[in-house]
Amino acid sequence: MAVMTPSETVTAFIQAIERLDIDGAVAILSDDVLYENVPMNPIAGREGVRAALAGFLGSASQVAWPVSSQFEHGNRVVNERVDRFKIGEGWLEMPVAGFFDVNDQGLITLWRDYFDLATYTDQMAALRP
Amino acid sequence: MAVMTPSETVTAFIQAIERLDIDGAVAILSDDVLYENVPMNPIAGREGVRAALAGFLGSASQVAWPVSSQFEHGNRVVNERVDRFKIGEGWLEMPVAGFFDVNDQGLITLWRDYFDLATYTDQMAALRP
Repeated sequence: MAVMTPSETVTAFIQAIERLDIDGAVAILSDDVLYENVPMNPIAGREGVRAALAGFLGSASQVAWPVSSQFEHGNRVVNERVDRFKIGEGWLEMPVAGFFDVNDQGLITLWRDYFDLATYTDQMAALRP
Repeated sequence: MAVMTPSETVTAFIQAIERLDIDGAVAILSDDVLYENVPMNPIAGREGVRAALAGFLGSASQVAWPVSSQFEHGNRVVNERVDRFKIGEGWLEMPVAGFFDVNDQGLITLWRDYFDLATYTDQMAALRP
């Protein structure tokens, strides 16, 4: 079996999120993963990330996170994305810069996203029934 | 004279900003540079960026933009920074993810920063006399 590159690992993680497959997504995270949404409090550990994903994926009926650029530098992967969530009848769209570290076991140990929090909350308020 | 790498070009640009040397900073930009503060409207052209820099550097008596990580991929440079501005007696601090493209003439053609706008505006409101 071919080992995935760090970039392929991040792509598999995002594809799991797009399938709303939380088990599949967190299986790609290390036990001690650190998840930083930069404007918010960091979340430590796989089970903490599971709860966070369940929260923000739970309000969406569909999710698409198209990646406009992604590349790796050693074990670090960087991407630019537009994280899209279907909320009710509309789509919330949020530009994101993501930084990921992937360990030698092919698990994500760091996930750090930079984005504008109000871009998310303002659209959520407008779209929620 | 040694040609700078794209990463060195970005470092020189940030160092000019830290010196509050707007002329030195914009000299490293292409005429048609595109400057995107992602939560805000994009700014096109060197003179537009000069005006933007004059605006947000003008309210600061000191500026430090420490870079925690930076690397290049072809002509693309990515960094993570904390952009710090001394406003009155206090320091405003804003985490930023920056994406830069550098052309073959060693000029920056794209500067795209991801950050949380309220992190800036809330601190600015608190610090301004």
